[in-house]
Amino acid sequence: MKVALFGAGRIGKVHAASIKTDPRSELVAVTDVVSEAADALALEHGIKARSAGDILADASIDAILIASSTNTHADLIEAGVKSNKAIFCEKPIDLSLERALGIRKVAAGHGKPVMMGFNRRFDPNFAALKVALDSGEIGKGELLAVTSYDPAPPPVSYIKVSGGLFRDMMIHDFDMCSFLFGLPKTVMAHGSCLVDPEIGKAGDVDTAVVVMTYEDGRIATIRNSRRAPYGYDQRVEVLGSAGTLAAENEIENTVVKSTAAGVMSAKPVYFFLERYMRAYAIEWSAFVDACVDGKPVPAGIQDGVNALALAEAANRSLSEGRPVEVTPGLTGA
Amino acid sequence: MKVALFGAGRIGKVHAASIKTDPRSELVAVTDVVSEAADALALEHGIKARSAGDILADASIDAILIASSTNTHADLIEAGVKSNKAIFCEKPIDLSLERALGIRKVAAGHGKPVMMGFNRRFDPNFAALKVALDSGEIGKGELLAVTSYDPAPPPVSYIKVSGGLFRDMMIHDFDMCSFLFGLPKTVMAHGSCLVDPEIGKAGDVDTAVVVMTYEDGRIATIRNSRRAPYGYDQRVEVLGSAGTLAAENEIENTVVKSTAAGVMSAKPVYFFLERYMRAYAIEWSAFVDACVDGKPVPAGIQDGVNALALAEAANRSLSEGRPVEVTPGLTGA
Amino acid sequence: MKVALFGAGRIGKVHAASIKTDPRSELVAVTDVVSEAADALALEHGIKARSAGDILADASIDAILIASSTNTHADLIEAGVKSNKAIFCEKPIDLSLERALGIRKVAAGHGKPVMMGFNRRFDPNFAALKVALDSGEIGKGELLAVTSYDPAPPPVSYIKVSGGLFRDMMIHDFDMCSFLFGLPKTVMAHGSCLVDPEIGKAGDVDTAVVVMTYEDGRIATIRNSRRAPYGYDQRVEVLGSAGTLAAENEIENTVVKSTAAGVMSAKPVYFFLERYMRAYAIEWSAFVDACVDGKPVPAGIQDGVNALALAEAANRSLSEGRPVEVTPGLTGA
Amino acid sequence: MKVALFGAGRIGKVHAASIKTDPRSELVAVTDVVSEAADALALEHGIKARSAGDILADASIDAILIASSTNTHADLIEAGVKSNKAIFCEKPIDLSLERALGIRKVAAGHGKPVMMGFNRRFDPNFAALKVALDSGEIGKGELLAVTSYDPAPPPVSYIKVSGGLFRDMMIHDFDMCSFLFGLPKTVMAHGSCLVDPEIGKAGDVDTAVVVMTYEDGRIATIRNSRRAPYGYDQRVEVLGSAGTLAAENEIENTVVKSTAAGVMSAKPVYFFLERYMRAYAIEWSAFVDACVDGKPVPAGIQDGVNALALAEAANRSLSEGRPVEVTPGLTGA
Repeated sequence: MKVALFGAGRIGKVHAASIKTDPRSELVAVTDVVSEAADALALEHGIKARSAGDILADASIDAILIASSTNTHADLIEAGVKSNKAIFCEKPIDLSLERALGIRKVAAGHGKPVMMGFNRRFDPNFAALKVALDSGEIGKGELLAVTSYDPAPPPVSYIKVSGGLFRDMMIHDFDMCSFLFGLPKTVMAHGSCLVDPEIGKAGDVDTAVVVMTYEDGRIATIRNSRRAPYGYDQRVEVLGSAGTLAAENEIENTVVKSTAAGVMSAKPVYFFLERYMRAYAIEWSAFVDACVDGKPVPAGIQDGVNALALAEAANRSLSEGRPVEVTPGLTGA
Repeated sequence: MKVALFGAGRIGKVHAASIKTDPRSELVAVTDVVSEAADALALEHGIKARSAGDILADASIDAILIASSTNTHADLIEAGVKSNKAIFCEKPIDLSLERALGIRKVAAGHGKPVMMGFNRRFDPNFAALKVALDSGEIGKGELLAVTSYDPAPPPVSYIKVSGGLFRDMMIHDFDMCSFLFGLPKTVMAHGSCLVDPEIGKAGDVDTAVVVMTYEDGRIATIRNSRRAPYGYDQRVEVLGSAGTLAAENEIENTVVKSTAAGVMSAKPVYFFLERYMRAYAIEWSAFVDACVDGKPVPAGIQDGVNALALAEAANRSLSEGRPVEVTPGLTGA
Repeated sequence: MKVALFGAGRIGKVHAASIKTDPRSELVAVTDVVSEAADALALEHGIKARSAGDILADASIDAILIASSTNTHADLIEAGVKSNKAIFCEKPIDLSLERALGIRKVAAGHGKPVMMGFNRRFDPNFAALKVALDSGEIGKGELLAVTSYDPAPPPVSYIKVSGGLFRDMMIHDFDMCSFLFGLPKTVMAHGSCLVDPEIGKAGDVDTAVVVMTYEDGRIATIRNSRRAPYGYDQRVEVLGSAGTLAAENEIENTVVKSTAAGVMSAKPVYFFLERYMRAYAIEWSAFVDACVDGKPVPAGIQDGVNALALAEAANRSLSEGRPVEVTPGLTGA
Repeated sequence: MKVALFGAGRIGKVHAASIKTDPRSELVAVTDVVSEAADALALEHGIKARSAGDILADASIDAILIASSTNTHADLIEAGVKSNKAIFCEKPIDLSLERALGIRKVAAGHGKPVMMGFNRRFDPNFAALKVALDSGEIGKGELLAVTSYDPAPPPVSYIKVSGGLFRDMMIHDFDMCSFLFGLPKTVMAHGSCLVDPEIGKAGDVDTAVVVMTYEDGRIATIRNSRRAPYGYDQRVEVLGSAGTLAAENEIENTVVKSTAAGVMSAKPVYFFLERYMRAYAIEWSAFVDACVDGKPVPAGIQDGVNALALAEAANRSLSEGRPVEVTPGLTGA
């Protein structure tokens, strides 16, 4: 299965490496608006950098992997559908929910897999929690708590084009909640600017808590911060009728040092590249499974729409200072 | 220091044992509306059961410890003030915030210590977290998360007279938030009946999430459930600008068993008697410190009013489905 | 049950407190060669300091608790037997195995309980491990590893009269091995002086490893050091045919701090008073059970002889540089 | 750097994958006495299976990786030296210490890197412990304890040609001790057959404890079992003058489940492939560093000789039932 990569930045490089780990897929082309980036990645993988149009027109290419900037995602999905290619797209579909709904329509008729890159579903820890939850090991889930802190905020220049914390960062946690608990009925968002006042000046928050309630009384909370100086803090915990499941952080190493100063152990792995390295490879193989073996994609366009709808609801809740209902019809509920 | 105990039930027995652990205090009398209970406890401690009036009239008694049912607390505080005794009272002051405000007035002029039994402030784990937080070990606190699950719900008959989850159970967590973060500006409550439908029929919830926001942008969340089948789950976590502090559960023993079935360790200690046994003794000594050495009480009437004001705000928020402001003037802010 | 205490030092005070925790026993007298120590402890407990002879002659006293210096243990056990009292004696019986064997004979005909203070058998963690091991939860035990480090060495003056590391410190670990695995066939000792050269000059080691082999092929190792700067390190681990059991340290509190410097948790509790406080109370109640209810003592004179025989074998092994057989006939095997 | 692989079995496949992870090295040929195995691995990597002679004669091949059966190691090292190739060889050099000493001589004059595959030195956990120990974070090391259990014994047919537990399994732990503490003065071995009587009939032990003492008084213990039903148990712990360092197991995932039955977490990763996957890649890059950048090999022929000399000493100790001195001159001390 021949794959072309759109976007040779940080996340593009991660995906290029993942493609290599599955013997059924092969990276054959790369493109980037920054031609130097495309050339460097191409050189490293012994391939050629090509233009986007050239790639889309090449019938020998089976799939495109969209890891370019957010504002290109929707157009590239459309182009990929027209070119009859399997499509793997980084989150989000678009910053506009309306545009995302348009893409949902376009993708609906596509005969090839379209998969959204919600990588955390493939993290072995969260995946193991999901299996245990679904198999009833703690009875019926009741309270879900997602903790998700980045080690440090991105530059304010990035914040300005990010679409805001809910669509840029918490979107992963919205998807995690959908993955584990399905779709909620209401969303209540609280947010503050505690990490960097520049983020507040850019109109965004850097610290947020969202509570979502479900038709059947279940409740989920998400806590986000743009800064956790000890590393990437990524935990999920579910209380069920028969017990609790908690997926803890992965740590840098297992050494424990005990001295008069206390007992010290290693920090969580630093950021998403370290934490989700295995997840990216597993995620990619799931996409190849869909392309090669016809298996269903584990995270599709509707999942991308759902996460975006929750992010939009959170934005509305934050600005209106009250819980909002998730717009019916938008979500896959 | 001679102490008389009001209430010979479960919590009364705990306090009777605590009084024994401080050589400066001596239990000299006990009273209970159930005279058999008073007699049994008196026998065990080699003292006499007496009437409430008799105790209050006895000038040789320095302090009263109120561990009787909630509806007697306010009256007994008033009586204790009139009898010029130091007063230790179990939470809450009363189910009515108005009544509690009246008690605040009464106690204001009292020349003796009046202390509320917010035992968790004295738990060595939470106390250590508080010390570390206040000393700036994680910079400035930003996000506070309190997890507090009981092992099993009380009988519905108790629920009916309890004043509801917020005033009966979460009141401890409200106090924990006040202890660590001070007083909030808004309270948003979510609640469900997931554990036992009879609790719902009694007009209460058994599962709840509360989010509180602070003037300076800090945010606190409390998660409560009446049921955690593995024991009493009592944890506190604070994200600060320089790191995270987490107080984890205490466990029954430190044995870890590794077999083909997995790695198993002991459960959290079962309930408040086990978990807070040390806290009760430390708490009592703090009261004796106040009585004997004139130290300030670490949790006074205003703290009782504050917790009650937050519980009432949570009730309002839950019934109105929106965040409510904490009534100014009520709290000690 | 009326109890007299011999020895008002550190361990005597611990036992005096334990006696108080069991409502069936009462401390009525104390004696010590340092009369100030006896007076102080007597004052604290509202009793009188008396002479040893006076106590032994007092027929109203049911039991004596021997917590005086090691060189008085054997004489006091003999005196206690003659005075027809139940006897609780701190380890060891004596530094001389021969003398201990004589005591075994004396105690054999005694109609009252004689119990040795091997407190670690009553530690809730080790006791839970023992229950799990005996109930076959990890199949048949194969490899036993005891880690036992003191936080800091005692003064060299103490070392000189201690009887050496094997009889003074490791004797507890020998008993732990006997408790869990029974009696070994061979003992091989290795020892060094790494902590304080003065200990070496006093003819002792401060760091030691002992390996014991059992008739059926099981193997136990003990690691001792007089110094672990982070506190009292007391762990036991057993590999069995179906898994591993490990009893870990108890820690000062459960707070975990995560910062850029790493993840820090509390140290093990500092020393035996902190770690084994609960064990001392449980141990005492076991002795009262034996006295009051006629239950068997959980650690008797033979257990004291066994531990001493293993310590002596370790001394021989260390001086001869080879494994030695445990002298048959001495031990309770 | 062009590499040829000798041996297409389990460990050969691991190394083939590692070669791929370093962009500076390329697998160009493979050989195996089982031609089907060589063909399969060649196919997977898009290369050709070739004869050993052909490979050695091919001047374009820079390095050979010896992952064939133990009895071929010495011959292949000699052949590699003659063919002027860099050599990476799985442990051990040979089962015969004498033969290994001969190889040491042969390799001494070789101008290319010769590296022994002591993979555990590259495990991120043990490597981090080593760094902390060498940087004095716990003062001077005093007591070293290596725990090393396989999940399940190999077939008895393998045991028979393995050279015995000390040379086949504990050799890794001998190297770990050398890595951390250098070379010992005496070795005392204890061994039993507890896992499978057939192993005993084959003249080997399946459970063993070795104690090594060092010139300066330090002491190391190694515990081995061929069976730990919960997975590969691989831990290292060092007590130093200022504290303890412990490298714990890696676990399958970080999920913790708390139910009425207890608190359950994941098992250690199953066996060496899972546990040391990262170590193999890091190890390989260290070899490439030596070949390409002229860096010293982190584990050379002398390290292979040392581990073998300790294993031989253990065999002698076990058969003679006494501590034996490590033969001077053999080791790199």
